[in-house]
Amino acid sequence: MQITPITADNFVLFWPTFKAVVQARETYAFDPDISFDDAYALWCELPQFTYVAKEDGVVLGSYYLKPNAAGPGDHVCNCGYMVAPEARGKGVARALCLHSQDQAIEAGYLAMQFNAVVSTNETAIGLWQSLGFAIIGTVPNGYRHARQGLVDTHIMHKALR
Amino acid sequence: MQITPITADNFVLFWPTFKAVVQARETYAFDPDISFDDAYALWCELPQFTYVAKEDGVVLGSYYLKPNAAGPGDHVCNCGYMVAPEARGKGVARALCLHSQDQAIEAGYLAMQFNAVVSTNETAIGLWQSLGFAIIGTVPNGYRHARQGLVDTHIMHKALR
Repeated sequence: MQITPITADNFVLFWPTFKAVVQARETYAFDPDISFDDAYALWCELPQFTYVAKEDGVVLGSYYLKPNAAGPGDHVCNCGYMVAPEARGKGVARALCLHSQDQAIEAGYLAMQFNAVVSTNETAIGLWQSLGFAIIGTVPNGYRHARQGLVDTHIMHKALR
Repeated sequence: MQITPITADNFVLFWPTFKAVVQARETYAFDPDISFDDAYALWCELPQFTYVAKEDGVVLGSYYLKPNAAGPGDHVCNCGYMVAPEARGKGVARALCLHSQDQAIEAGYLAMQFNAVVSTNETAIGLWQSLGFAIIGTVPNGYRHARQGLVDTHIMHKALR
């Protein structure tokens, strides 16, 4: 698996994964009907940087990294990770998160924060906890889950130095 | 005190307050060197709506309201309030927050969330708590306070219905 800065061509290959994730309405608070162009802007242009994981030319997943706030809050970064449905269970998310932490430290961030980890997404919560993230808060009914209705979301955080 | 939708002319009158608040680096995670145009976009164009409080033509304060997330998270709103230094202690922030809750309920939001209430801003925290908001999480060292260095930030939340 290689993790490299994303290109526009990579994003075309990643788009089916992005679309599947947001249309599932189980993990991400993104518009499920977002257009390709808006998704590209959100995932690849707005963030500070975006990486893609590939194996033999196949896109396995991607993540973005950006400051979680501006000015006096810009020492905390925020990341989002998506893994292709067919690549799940192979450690791709773990590899992406470890990579993002290295990048964040190199860029000078002091901490990493996830703002809305859906409480029913136990796989993700367990993974982030195993990587040193803690639940520092819970938003009651923060997410309208496609199958489970209103569910809580967690704020997760890790100090990087 | 009248609270009305902000106009471009109002924002010109509000700009000294905005600039003073962000330059103080004590309460807001906005770029302290933000330009007038970027501040206008951030405060008046990006949000769903923005109101201004005036008395005898003088701008006392302003707030914005926007969804705190997109798609399956867009039933929780986020607001920011600023009060002119010379108008503090007169209940302007309380009036703005009450007004914003009415607007949020009318717009269909189920809850209101503040993402980064600086822990040293005890006046604000006490006010939000008196209006029914609870601290649902704390980000360790989330803010670089101009005088106190790294301080915590609180996530505050209120269910609106």
